[in-house]
Order: sequence, then structure tokens, then C-alpha cells
Amino acid sequence: MSNTLHLDAEALYANLLAGVRRIVTPETTLVGVWSGGAWLAERLTTDLGLAASPGVISSALHRDDFSSRGMSAKTDATHLPFEVDGRHILLIDDVLYTGRTTRAVINELFDFGRPASVALVVLVDRGGRQLPIEPVLSAARITLPADQRVALVRDDNGRFQFHFETV
Amino acid sequence: MSNTLHLDAEALYANLLAGVRRIVTPETTLVGVWSGGAWLAERLTTDLGLAASPGVISSALHRDDFSSRGMSAKTDATHLPFEVDGRHILLIDDVLYTGRTTRAVINELFDFGRPASVALVVLVDRGGRQLPIEPVLSAARITLPADQRVALVRDDNGRFQFHFETV
Repeated sequence: MSNTLHLDAEALYANLLAGVRRIVTPETTLVGVWSGGAWLAERLTTDLGLAASPGVISSALHRDDFSSRGMSAKTDATHLPFEVDGRHILLIDDVLYTGRTTRAVINELFDFGRPASVALVVLVDRGGRQLPIEPVLSAARITLPADQRVALVRDDNGRFQFHFETV
Repeated sequence: MSNTLHLDAEALYANLLAGVRRIVTPETTLVGVWSGGAWLAERLTTDLGLAASPGVISSALHRDDFSSRGMSAKTDATHLPFEVDGRHILLIDDVLYTGRTTRAVINELFDFGRPASVALVVLVDRGGRQLPIEPVLSAARITLPADQRVALVRDDNGRFQFHFETV
């Protein structure tokens, strides 16, 4: 790991929780992007005391590089235990970068129905957008070299950490 | 017309032109959303002295209310006189509202290829977003009642005006 940047995932999660608390309404349905966003949505649901289970959505089938990546284990990750039609969805992701994943999961979502609204919340916005997609809330904005990947991981106690990788 | 808001379309266009001049590069390809955005892209191409003809894109085939609207004359409006693959596209629209049209035209664009990037520029942002879509540039931000529509029109001399309509 060549990065000198230290990101405290638990501290950022606390910020995210405070932010989501301000914008969540009784009509909000949480949907987490597999896998990091799904963990966040799960923990937000607990910490906010929401009654409904969050949905999980995968970008696998709608990715614009699907043909070069091929099928992966992610394909079956989508699980939306509610009617998507007319729903106000708060889409949760760990890291926002180019926006291509967000486009893919929104298309996946629309395969299930026509939501009343979709707003995006991310733990980390690393810039580098290639599509006109923006979150309503991000706990941190960082800049990373293009060859670095960052993703959320969970340790054995369920605590969040960031995993950096040079690709 | 019950609106008391006066929007000077020509003055806003001058602002838009100044803004686009700052962000356009030799690699930028303009694509206008039919119909208002296409007129803007056409005039920007002339005023910026760009060599390449702008593309025109229609949202008709990808709209999420396609089944209730049915086929319209817009269907054939898409005309992209270049390879979309690897292209840096500046998408131009007259009015940004829910973001659903933008989602639809981006999907239409991806039917033709995988652009390197798509950034959105709009003349007027009227708020009311239902999707996590944001422009890099808008010449004005306004608020309108939900039952009002606004769209760009061209007079006989090719000058821009806004047309307001209560629906």
C-alpha cells in the first residue's frame, strides 16, 4: 500500500449517519449497492431504527463493460424485498468515482419498476466523474491516482475499513 | 400565462456560451437533446467556431413513461454523425427538471457506443430532481410550480425565447 492518505471509515460512517438522519423520511427506502453500499444500508437501517429491510442492488448486468468483464458472482446480488414502483429510494454506495456503476444500478432498479425518486448517498466521493451523476450527500471527498482502487471492507467485528489497491 | 417570472433566453444563452467556452476542449463533441438542446448545440457550434457538426439525441425510445406516452415524432430525431465510442461528449439541454430525460438520452447514447465521458450543460435548471443527475454548468436556476412547463422556442429570426405552459 503506497497511499499516505488515511481515511477513518468508522468516523466517516458516523458523518454519513448524521447526514442521512437529516434527509430520511418515513417514505424513504434504503437500497445499498453491492457490496460496500449494502453493508452501509444494513447498518444505517439498524442505527436509524428503520422498520423496513434495505434492498441490495448489483450493477453486474447493466455495466457498460459487461462484455469485457463477463458474468461474475455479483449477478445474483440484487434483492429488492418491496415494490420499486412509486418508491422514494435512497441509493447508498461506498465509493463514487466515474458514475458508471451508479448508472448501471439505476438501470437495474428501473428493470423492477419506476421509482418516484432516486437520490444518491456515498461514503466517499473520489471525483473523476465520467457521467453527470452527483450525490446529495458524501461524507468525504478525496483525490486518488487513477491506478488506485478503494473499497469498503468489514473486519471480523463488523467494523468498516477502507481497502486500497493499486491496479 | 400566469407566470410573473421573466427569463431572458438570449441573455442566458450568452452566459451559457461564455461558460461552455471555458470548458470546451479540442476533444469535446457537442450533442444536443432534441429539440431545444439541439438548437443550443447548433448555435454553440457556430459561435465557438467548432469544426464538427453537433449530434442530436432524442429521449423518446428510453423514456420510463414510454408506455403511457407512446410513440411520437421524436423517435427519429437521434442523429449522431460520429463514432460515440471513446468520445468526450458535452450533452446540451434547454431545461433540466427531474433528470428522467437525461437518463433516457444517456441510455440512448450508450446504445451507439461507450463514450469516454458525458458531461451535462443546461440553459435552465428548474430543480425538482428525481434522479441523482447534475449539470456541470447551468445559466440559471429557477423554481416553478409543478404544473408549469417551460421549454425553449425559436422565433422566425432564430432568436431564443422561453415558452411557458400550465399543464
